[in-house]
Amino acid sequence: MSDPQTNRQFRLASRPVGAAKESDWDLVTEDVPSPADGEFVAEVIQISLDPAMRGWMNAGRSYVPPVEIGEVMRAFANGRVIASRHPDYKVGDMVTGLLGVQDYALSDGSGVHRIDPELPVPVSTNIGLLGLTGMTAYIGLLDIGEFRPGQTVVVNGAAGAVGSTVGQIAKILGGTVVGIAGGPDKCRYLTEELGFDGAVDYKNEDVAAALRTLIPEGADVLFDNVGGPTLDAGLRRLARGARVVICGAVSQYNSETGAVGPNQYLSLLVNRARMEGFVVDDHRHRFPTAARAISTWLAQGRMHNVEHIVHGDLLDFPKKLSSLFAGENTGKLVLDLSTPA
Amino acid sequence: MSDPQTNRQFRLASRPVGAAKESDWDLVTEDVPSPADGEFVAEVIQISLDPAMRGWMNAGRSYVPPVEIGEVMRAFANGRVIASRHPDYKVGDMVTGLLGVQDYALSDGSGVHRIDPELPVPVSTNIGLLGLTGMTAYIGLLDIGEFRPGQTVVVNGAAGAVGSTVGQIAKILGGTVVGIAGGPDKCRYLTEELGFDGAVDYKNEDVAAALRTLIPEGADVLFDNVGGPTLDAGLRRLARGARVVICGAVSQYNSETGAVGPNQYLSLLVNRARMEGFVVDDHRHRFPTAARAISTWLAQGRMHNVEHIVHGDLLDFPKKLSSLFAGENTGKLVLDLSTPA
Repeated sequence: MSDPQTNRQFRLASRPVGAAKESDWDLVTEDVPSPADGEFVAEVIQISLDPAMRGWMNAGRSYVPPVEIGEVMRAFANGRVIASRHPDYKVGDMVTGLLGVQDYALSDGSGVHRIDPELPVPVSTNIGLLGLTGMTAYIGLLDIGEFRPGQTVVVNGAAGAVGSTVGQIAKILGGTVVGIAGGPDKCRYLTEELGFDGAVDYKNEDVAAALRTLIPEGADVLFDNVGGPTLDAGLRRLARGARVVICGAVSQYNSETGAVGPNQYLSLLVNRARMEGFVVDDHRHRFPTAARAISTWLAQGRMHNVEHIVHGDLLDFPKKLSSLFAGENTGKLVLDLSTPA
Repeated sequence: MSDPQTNRQFRLASRPVGAAKESDWDLVTEDVPSPADGEFVAEVIQISLDPAMRGWMNAGRSYVPPVEIGEVMRAFANGRVIASRHPDYKVGDMVTGLLGVQDYALSDGSGVHRIDPELPVPVSTNIGLLGLTGMTAYIGLLDIGEFRPGQTVVVNGAAGAVGSTVGQIAKILGGTVVGIAGGPDKCRYLTEELGFDGAVDYKNEDVAAALRTLIPEGADVLFDNVGGPTLDAGLRRLARGARVVICGAVSQYNSETGAVGPNQYLSLLVNRARMEGFVVDDHRHRFPTAARAISTWLAQGRMHNVEHIVHGDLLDFPKKLSSLFAGENTGKLVLDLSTPA
């Protein structure tokens, strides 16, 4: 549990080879910072655990700079202001943004914004459906995937944060949705709780064969969070003119030998299809529209706020991050520090 | 040499595993056909040898139906009408289209058209720069790749038919062009004869490193005829927002274990890029524009008619087709039957 006197931080000690290990982190203890003029300090309440975090730990060119060795691990988080010399933030305000994996974050407000206390949604939603998870799903499906009502969507990592949101949005907007997920429980969850038209258990089924049965006409949008064999299986079932949205590659991030490409990529040629990657931050102008739509659907009860909140201590961070890559979560994985288990 | 009494045909005997072998063909001899009402017979003069032919020999779903076992091998070819009961064709007319790998083709005119004898270009151009080769290069570069003046293009298979045309069009329209080809002779040809800005010899150079030096800002268009390692090397050097045009995969067609996907595909995500396949026949409405542009550039001497015409007999077909996959040609490979060597 956090101590009001000290600030514990997970700093990057070494760049992982394969999956991140305990020794890749330095647990550093400092005094809680004091804000200078124009700064505030927030106690970190909820930490978002995202597949992208693994990529941030690698050196080299990517869509954001890597976390440097010795730097506090980057993380989206929600926090509560405990001290402020910033005109826009007062003690007690809830904030959301890149607060990092630590008990207390010092901020000048960049990359952070105040949470509107009037919003009729749980605070956690700010790092979930109203945060990058929801934005990624909405923009990936509609802007990059050009999904239109009546079309068919296949999404992998379907019980994960982005996947379960993509499927729900496509259902609300009148699509046919098949999710690919690991294990019968997740598959049942997709069809029975979230209203997916079908689900394929990649751990126990031949995915390509199952897709052939479920969507004989093929997928108009293949939303790929995973890479590897489920991407290939989806590529084998594209409709003509399909759009393959490359959102992530959670099956590949921990590979020691680098990612493996989709052997079925020539399906793009046969089906006159395209495969496109995106970085949601490029599409900030669309965030208000996406957030408004998602808030409305949540308020109408048409959308489940798919969150997997684990209560724990900051020290649980490495273990919980690993559980994400093991697929132990259903929906958005959040480490909540406010109520120690 | 062809005999005016008999028609020799290469029919598909079996579906090749890996590269096509002699035993995958049946050489069949028939009487020269006689045209019925509405038909004509053309003597085949020039046969187009294309990487796509390997794909046509496979069973299963693709962008065109496969050549069936026992069927005359599909081929684009030029021919001369020797007998006609078709109102639009008279003896002596030159025709171009899917005449097949045989001495004489019987046709009702479908998939075939008359060559305008007034056109100031060699007849061979009809299966080359004014045929699918030129159409593929023009439409792939401009419509799928959305190349614009001032942009940078990387093309592999650059000394081949489509590749050398893509590079020339991009140069004419004000681009920077780097070609990837096999061997110093081909590379010299690209830079010295065709005016490419740079060439990389994939047989003797580290392609990714060479591209890093030649185009530090990355490629706006990566035109992929080849697949495999040169596709991966190109993916590592994409500019932000790049378009990767999947035109073919000549390095993969003869694989016994199926195509290997591009391991660097996550570059699409990092660079917000897209990879798109196309089938040129979908874009017939653009053929007149493309043909007009290419004819003009040829007439102005701004474009080389990059053809690799080998004179021979119909019996040379299997060997010459293999030479295509061995990369023995520079430019469009044509088997010319009119002047036996």
